[in-house]
Amino acid sequence: MRTPRLPSGLRAAGIACGLRGEEQPERLDLGLLVADQARPAAAVFTRSKLLGAHIPLCREHLDASGGLVRAVVVNAGNANCCTGSLGEEDAREVVRLVARGLDVPEHEVLFMSTGVIGARLPMQRLTPALPALVDRLGEDGLADFADAILTTDTRRKVTERELSGGARVVGVAKGSGMIHPDLATMFGFLLTDAALESADEATRLLRDSCRVTFNRLSVDGDTSPNDTVLLWSTGATAVPASVLATGLTGVGTDLCRAIAADGEGASRLVTLRVAGAASEEEATHVGRVLATSPLCKTAITGRDPNWGRFISAACRAGVEVDPARMRLSIGGSAVFRDGEPLVAGEAEAHRVLREQEEVVVELELGRGEAEATVWSCDLTAAYVSINADYRT
Amino acid sequence: MRTPRLPSGLRAAGIACGLRGEEQPERLDLGLLVADQARPAAAVFTRSKLLGAHIPLCREHLDASGGLVRAVVVNAGNANCCTGSLGEEDAREVVRLVARGLDVPEHEVLFMSTGVIGARLPMQRLTPALPALVDRLGEDGLADFADAILTTDTRRKVTERELSGGARVVGVAKGSGMIHPDLATMFGFLLTDAALESADEATRLLRDSCRVTFNRLSVDGDTSPNDTVLLWSTGATAVPASVLATGLTGVGTDLCRAIAADGEGASRLVTLRVAGAASEEEATHVGRVLATSPLCKTAITGRDPNWGRFISAACRAGVEVDPARMRLSIGGSAVFRDGEPLVAGEAEAHRVLREQEEVVVELELGRGEAEATVWSCDLTAAYVSINADYRT
Repeated sequence: MRTPRLPSGLRAAGIACGLRGEEQPERLDLGLLVADQARPAAAVFTRSKLLGAHIPLCREHLDASGGLVRAVVVNAGNANCCTGSLGEEDAREVVRLVARGLDVPEHEVLFMSTGVIGARLPMQRLTPALPALVDRLGEDGLADFADAILTTDTRRKVTERELSGGARVVGVAKGSGMIHPDLATMFGFLLTDAALESADEATRLLRDSCRVTFNRLSVDGDTSPNDTVLLWSTGATAVPASVLATGLTGVGTDLCRAIAADGEGASRLVTLRVAGAASEEEATHVGRVLATSPLCKTAITGRDPNWGRFISAACRAGVEVDPARMRLSIGGSAVFRDGEPLVAGEAEAHRVLREQEEVVVELELGRGEAEATVWSCDLTAAYVSINADYRT
Repeated sequence: MRTPRLPSGLRAAGIACGLRGEEQPERLDLGLLVADQARPAAAVFTRSKLLGAHIPLCREHLDASGGLVRAVVVNAGNANCCTGSLGEEDAREVVRLVARGLDVPEHEVLFMSTGVIGARLPMQRLTPALPALVDRLGEDGLADFADAILTTDTRRKVTERELSGGARVVGVAKGSGMIHPDLATMFGFLLTDAALESADEATRLLRDSCRVTFNRLSVDGDTSPNDTVLLWSTGATAVPASVLATGLTGVGTDLCRAIAADGEGASRLVTLRVAGAASEEEATHVGRVLATSPLCKTAITGRDPNWGRFISAACRAGVEVDPARMRLSIGGSAVFRDGEPLVAGEAEAHRVLREQEEVVVELELGRGEAEATVWSCDLTAAYVSINADYRT
């Protein structure tokens, strides 16, 4: 993806300060976003019972500021999670130094961390880098910021949507493994110069958008304790709420697809469309079961339109489905209908799996009218190697 | 495991008839168990909504015979699932031929299939082999039977427990992938010469045993449409129900451990003991979440006592846990307590992971007194290869 311009009123920067350890000393690992003044924002966080130190701190600051945010600092390489009260103090110290450097109140500064769980933040490397990070802030800093927040990601994740009246929504995300968001994902930033009426409005728009985007994404079924999505409006361009909602969902969809396509070790982006469900919740549930089934995932890895694994996974999902009423297509070819396989469709699906980098799997449950799309990826030996050989 | 003697009154056989395809023409693929007369039995089956053709047929026959079984035929290489009404006819034809060969009523014969989903049974290979299969029946035929039912398994799964009064429980199982039983597993046969009072008693004993054995087993989180566990009593040796129950649970535990240790591609048997839960159901649920987490599994693959992944998975399990009250030990070494890691224990756990083929992970939730043990295995590149390169 081409890196878009920041919405007006925002500046960004990224810097390398050695948080990723000795193997990657030059890779950017500390990012900063700053608005021209405190601007309305809303955030959603992981529903895991394990929380990175940044999550209670972000909640506290959003409460204290009435949802007005001036700056967001993000580090990669260290999740500051399971680090106890010392980890909380480290996070507060970073916020204090950034607030002092920008001359703004501490509660207008958010700080987020991603990376290894259970190790203290290397403060002796991080804090000396903060003045240079502030110095580098610029309207063209988005690429550096987007790079600085990546962990096992192999590529930058940015996107944008034009709204009416010249307003835009710009999206930035990170995420590759431990991806199975439950109310949020790793990190997603939805930055807009469209006006937000209120903090409540921001929260509602963000939740509605996450429900159909980040909450329908799974790389490996493991929810992260640091998942955070932030919506932040820097502008006063009036845009109808429905237009903004469409923009947010579009940007969220782009970012979800980018995260799934760059899932750890992934060789295929898998888009799962479940239709004919009794409710949207049921469709999403079945989609997530397919997205986390190792047998469905490895069928894609093997370029094998193994419809039996998809039908089988849907039938063990705890939903009252009847296989005789289900239909399945893979790569646009019908491979299963009326309880039996379709041999011609299977041959065509096999060809699509070999040749196309995105695989669309469509499952009709035959129970109702509701549907949902879930994004995922295949499971490869490289995923195992990434997660067996390196500590995350 | 040494192959035990069959309980008295039972004969067994196994034969190769080419059901596994051209790559394995000599491997045994058709097994038969026959009792001296119709004997009381009970079965539990998968809770998947997709059912192999054998499951409704077995249910029908157990109903018609009042739970009295004379013979059990099993084929590997083909699951006879998603094969429609032709698949049902194939299954009935096999039963008809076996009943005729043994001169017994059809409803005293059970037939079970395991292997590829969605292909018709190769009847032209299977039916001509049935007379030779019956001819080979013998009191020493258990090893051949146990080999004939294997699919991606790499080894025979048999065990036994001595009860009081000379009675025994002998167990046979198959299973390696698509293992996440929900009321039963792949195939488990619990054969005993201890007397069963009634079909109801048999069912109760079997369900109680499965609850704490086969239902606490997961290789990859995918439940099979053909899962079946059969309890079959051939003798009249009186044994207290509690003694028989203990024997059944012991044999079931051995078989679960054997299946998990031989999980597709597995290099480590993982025994997950979850304690301090509010209920046994809760403990089992958390154990199954850990057992299916790709990040927990690949930590074991990498011999990495990565406590953060286990704590993180337990905290996203949907249970109201508090990480500050949780304790975790890996390989007998405490690695996490009071919300923080224990560095010394981690080093010792690292050594155990490298050196021992079984890894015991113990998680204390700090919520109550209930506990459960779940058996699983690690996730290796070999699992991906097995399931990406071959159709199952």
